[in-house]
Amino acid sequence: MSAPSPQRRGRDRDDAAAPEDGAQRVRLRFLPDGAEVRVPSGTPVFDAASWNGIAIDSTCGGYGTCKKCKVRVISGEVPVGAIDPRAFTSEELRDGWRLACRANARTDLVIEVPPLQTRPKAALVGVGRHVILRPSVQKRHLVLTEPTLEDQRSDLQRVLDGLEDLEPHTSIDLMRSLGGILRAANFDVTAVVCDQELIDVEPGDTTARRFAIAFDLGTTTVVATLLDLDSGQPVAVRSMLNRQQPYGADVITRISATMMDDRALSALSERAHETVAELVDEVCAEGAVDAREIYEITVCGNVTMMQLALGIDPEPLSMAPFVVATHTFPPVHAADFGVIVHPRAPAFVFPSLGAYVGGDIVAGILATGLTRDRRLRLFIDVGTNSEIALGSSERVLATAAPAGPAFEAAQIKCGMRAAEGAIEALKITGDDLELEVIGDVEPVGMCGSGLVDAVAELVQHGLLDHSGRFIPDEDAAVLHPGLAPRLTMIGKERVFVLHWRDKDPETSVYLSQRDVRELQFAKASIATGWGILVRELGVEPGEITQVLLAGSFGAYLTPLSAVRIGLVPKLALPRIVSAGNVAGEGAKIAALSLRERAEAHSILREVEYIELSGRADFNDLFIDQLAFPG
Amino acid sequence: MSAPSPQRRGRDRDDAAAPEDGAQRVRLRFLPDGAEVRVPSGTPVFDAASWNGIAIDSTCGGYGTCKKCKVRVISGEVPVGAIDPRAFTSEELRDGWRLACRANARTDLVIEVPPLQTRPKAALVGVGRHVILRPSVQKRHLVLTEPTLEDQRSDLQRVLDGLEDLEPHTSIDLMRSLGGILRAANFDVTAVVCDQELIDVEPGDTTARRFAIAFDLGTTTVVATLLDLDSGQPVAVRSMLNRQQPYGADVITRISATMMDDRALSALSERAHETVAELVDEVCAEGAVDAREIYEITVCGNVTMMQLALGIDPEPLSMAPFVVATHTFPPVHAADFGVIVHPRAPAFVFPSLGAYVGGDIVAGILATGLTRDRRLRLFIDVGTNSEIALGSSERVLATAAPAGPAFEAAQIKCGMRAAEGAIEALKITGDDLELEVIGDVEPVGMCGSGLVDAVAELVQHGLLDHSGRFIPDEDAAVLHPGLAPRLTMIGKERVFVLHWRDKDPETSVYLSQRDVRELQFAKASIATGWGILVRELGVEPGEITQVLLAGSFGAYLTPLSAVRIGLVPKLALPRIVSAGNVAGEGAKIAALSLRERAEAHSILREVEYIELSGRADFNDLFIDQLAFPG
Repeated sequence: MSAPSPQRRGRDRDDAAAPEDGAQRVRLRFLPDGAEVRVPSGTPVFDAASWNGIAIDSTCGGYGTCKKCKVRVISGEVPVGAIDPRAFTSEELRDGWRLACRANARTDLVIEVPPLQTRPKAALVGVGRHVILRPSVQKRHLVLTEPTLEDQRSDLQRVLDGLEDLEPHTSIDLMRSLGGILRAANFDVTAVVCDQELIDVEPGDTTARRFAIAFDLGTTTVVATLLDLDSGQPVAVRSMLNRQQPYGADVITRISATMMDDRALSALSERAHETVAELVDEVCAEGAVDAREIYEITVCGNVTMMQLALGIDPEPLSMAPFVVATHTFPPVHAADFGVIVHPRAPAFVFPSLGAYVGGDIVAGILATGLTRDRRLRLFIDVGTNSEIALGSSERVLATAAPAGPAFEAAQIKCGMRAAEGAIEALKITGDDLELEVIGDVEPVGMCGSGLVDAVAELVQHGLLDHSGRFIPDEDAAVLHPGLAPRLTMIGKERVFVLHWRDKDPETSVYLSQRDVRELQFAKASIATGWGILVRELGVEPGEITQVLLAGSFGAYLTPLSAVRIGLVPKLALPRIVSAGNVAGEGAKIAALSLRERAEAHSILREVEYIELSGRADFNDLFIDQLAFPG
Repeated sequence: MSAPSPQRRGRDRDDAAAPEDGAQRVRLRFLPDGAEVRVPSGTPVFDAASWNGIAIDSTCGGYGTCKKCKVRVISGEVPVGAIDPRAFTSEELRDGWRLACRANARTDLVIEVPPLQTRPKAALVGVGRHVILRPSVQKRHLVLTEPTLEDQRSDLQRVLDGLEDLEPHTSIDLMRSLGGILRAANFDVTAVVCDQELIDVEPGDTTARRFAIAFDLGTTTVVATLLDLDSGQPVAVRSMLNRQQPYGADVITRISATMMDDRALSALSERAHETVAELVDEVCAEGAVDAREIYEITVCGNVTMMQLALGIDPEPLSMAPFVVATHTFPPVHAADFGVIVHPRAPAFVFPSLGAYVGGDIVAGILATGLTRDRRLRLFIDVGTNSEIALGSSERVLATAAPAGPAFEAAQIKCGMRAAEGAIEALKITGDDLELEVIGDVEPVGMCGSGLVDAVAELVQHGLLDHSGRFIPDEDAAVLHPGLAPRLTMIGKERVFVLHWRDKDPETSVYLSQRDVRELQFAKASIATGWGILVRELGVEPGEITQVLLAGSFGAYLTPLSAVRIGLVPKLALPRIVSAGNVAGEGAKIAALSLRERAEAHSILREVEYIELSGRADFNDLFIDQLAFPG
């Protein structure tokens, strides 16, 4: 094998589902509807179609076992594969007929898709994505003949023979109960297959019930969505704070905890498990679903959250050169996350691009379709660590910008989480401030979006200059006599009071000079990040057609303020959209479609990770970005 | 997929290593030495060569990852495979160059094997088999570069990139310790790969130490052989009685125990685990090997022993239609057998042909090379249940004959195990008996081989007639005046005293009329078994070139007596050989060679299992065989 190319060095190769070569791209046109897509060379035709919402018949989900995904190659070259001769006559092969799931696109192709025999279901999920339902979890009701001296097939073989379109492997654990189940049920059973593993055989016909849980395992908040895999619809959604909070608000403090105390890693792991276990109880109760009917979980989160939850030492993540244990995880079970659902339920864990561009971002890229869309788009997940991706179906770059805790409001004097009492938005109207407060109560602090609004408004109205300094009192009295009294001192530091209490600045909610500096550093870091990506990609910021602000913080951020402080490129406001919790959407998509899951691995190969630390041009750009735009 | 053919019905298809079509055979000739072999269509050229002692360069063991097993197809057709273009130029491909491990033989072929770059080691094992060492367990010493900001490859990827010729997958368990090991060892480590799984990364260079244990898990006796995988030589061998003994001497009584008591299955499983665990301690102590240096175990045994040890309900094995849980086991670890060696050590478990032709017989067929040898050979493992296989590289049939307990001496009045004091051989010389007694002590009973000798000699000398009846006293007095006094009565039953004690037949060691009947039933059952195989194969008994008597009983059996009582076909005595513990040899072979392991799976597809129960011709043949040959 040739040496890996530099861009691909950071990727794990233990990834059978992914196309072999992400660097080159090929163009596919699907007939009769004429849809055209560009995908990395080596992508199976079936996946290329699925990723673009074009349905092709299949019951196995794309493993070459059902032999239903028949398509015809009208133009271009696809060699006859090992399984094709079992599905087609020689004449059909000569005519270009191939199984779409085994046909890898290595040249431009025109593909004819026959009319569908069955209408596949789809769900609207992610950022306006239409996902064809092909869940990993499949059930088949089998009425098997009982063994006789003339038919001594093994118990396992009898079940496998009943699964005409699937060829799963299995586990010794299932073998321990299989014989008893078959005989107690008089050989009338339902096979449960999950990602090519026969995970259970259940008495009678249980095909109507199959569920999965998609987890977004965030540093702050953990969200669980219970999905009905038959309809693709969520049955229950619950979220709660990550119980690791006592070990620190951000990933760095939690990693530090493990470095100072040998027992902290297992304690943090247990806390993560407790959190998800409680969420499982809640969604099962709400959805009236038995935990044993949940046959799979999907999990996204940043690398630190994944390594902590799985008991992998995170120390190498916390210091240069920032090395992850693995980009693609080996097979993991729900039980490895402390999730007590079906005892043999696997867990799909999103792969990561880098130590600070984790599976949550890969999930987000999947949910937004960034690598498939022709438009040039900028994706920013704003947080203590901000992940940034820029590109289109041509090419996508990603990086991580250490924004510091400003956006989590931890280092901000009156900062707080986006909870009741937090100022989440703010506007200067005439001589007054209009505050939006979560819960419509008296404000007790401000969350990240409030901070951004406050700074943006003060810059806009001239009370903060472009270098980020509060203007002198005398200038303020001239410029904004109504607001000037809010500009005052606490000790030796100048502050701007957002909400008075007891006429005492110290007990009021205020913005301090140091808070402004924190935000400047944070936004400069992010702006430097996308600035470097823009430069690397050889585009102009004005060419960006859409900025997607992701993460729980992004959801609250006002596009106007984001532009004003220079957090995002200066674009028309409709181009800047809040994409919400795209990581969680990505986790749902992975539970609903095996093919989208393959896309997650494809993202790992296609997206080029740019490391900012140690870059010669970082500091120059950073200093340029510190000021607020004029 | 087409419906499975009747012969293949009993086989599990979850067996990727096996050739696709065992029914048809192709002929391969290897140049320059001209060796010719016949193998099932679909067999990789690499395996066909290995099975016949022809070495081809390879370091990965035949997974298509090292790309060293280059051969040239001189005549015949082998399509270019998916990996070939990565190993050869277009011109080389046109010239017929292929990777032997990926080249499946589907037509007769002539193959040129280039001179070896490295001389592979081999071991003499099994029944005169010369096995090329290609153990599943491989080690690679890696001196890796440390990560930098320019080289942020994941810890796993760094190790995988160091393994140039191997492309293993791994487990979440290893991921938990990998980062710590790499850093503590300054990235100077040894990777341990077992059957395409990276099971460990050890500090420093440990390549000189790699071991496996081969287990023959018998109903009566369990044997453990500790193997040095570098030399292929046994380091220590120990055996002990299976601790399941208190639950019954044979498989049926142990299965009955599980049917009468819900807790018996787990108790039997634990007893098996205790037995093997003690043997591990013993061989490790004797061989001065750390248990953690044992990276794999191989296990053969009958189906009941395997299912009990793995906690799988054996009830369906004990009654018609005699159904096994699975012929080929899903992935199993040493820990599943209670074997505490390397924590991630896998277990290779021999597949079974039928409920009563288990993995021990498949191991025996492997050790004897029955399916590869051109000679027509008969293999009999004599026991309570006797397994019989007949054939050559053309075709092999197998069956199981329920011989009853005669050969274990349990139902025999003066029967005992082959232990000190047992008459193991016997000869009539003139008027006296010559006894061979284990331990050269005063006899206290007879074991199976003594029983066979006694009956054979008495038939030979006319004291037993061909129907198996003791001749009348008056006839005996005329025929053998010296021996006639030994023919006497205990109660209403006639007996023949083998060794007098206190001149009282009841306290002496004797052969009773009922003992003779037991043996007649047993030998008739076995003779019916091979009789039906001879008939099915369309051959004459005289064409059999060799009879291999296997199992601990077979090792003691005198070929002459076996012929005289009609247990084996009437052949020249040199053609009847004791093959010893061939099952244990097969387990050793599997530990020493991945390719031989593939052969074990091939046996599963090639050997046709004939069920005797319910056959219309069984009873007729059985009655014919009851008499002793004239």
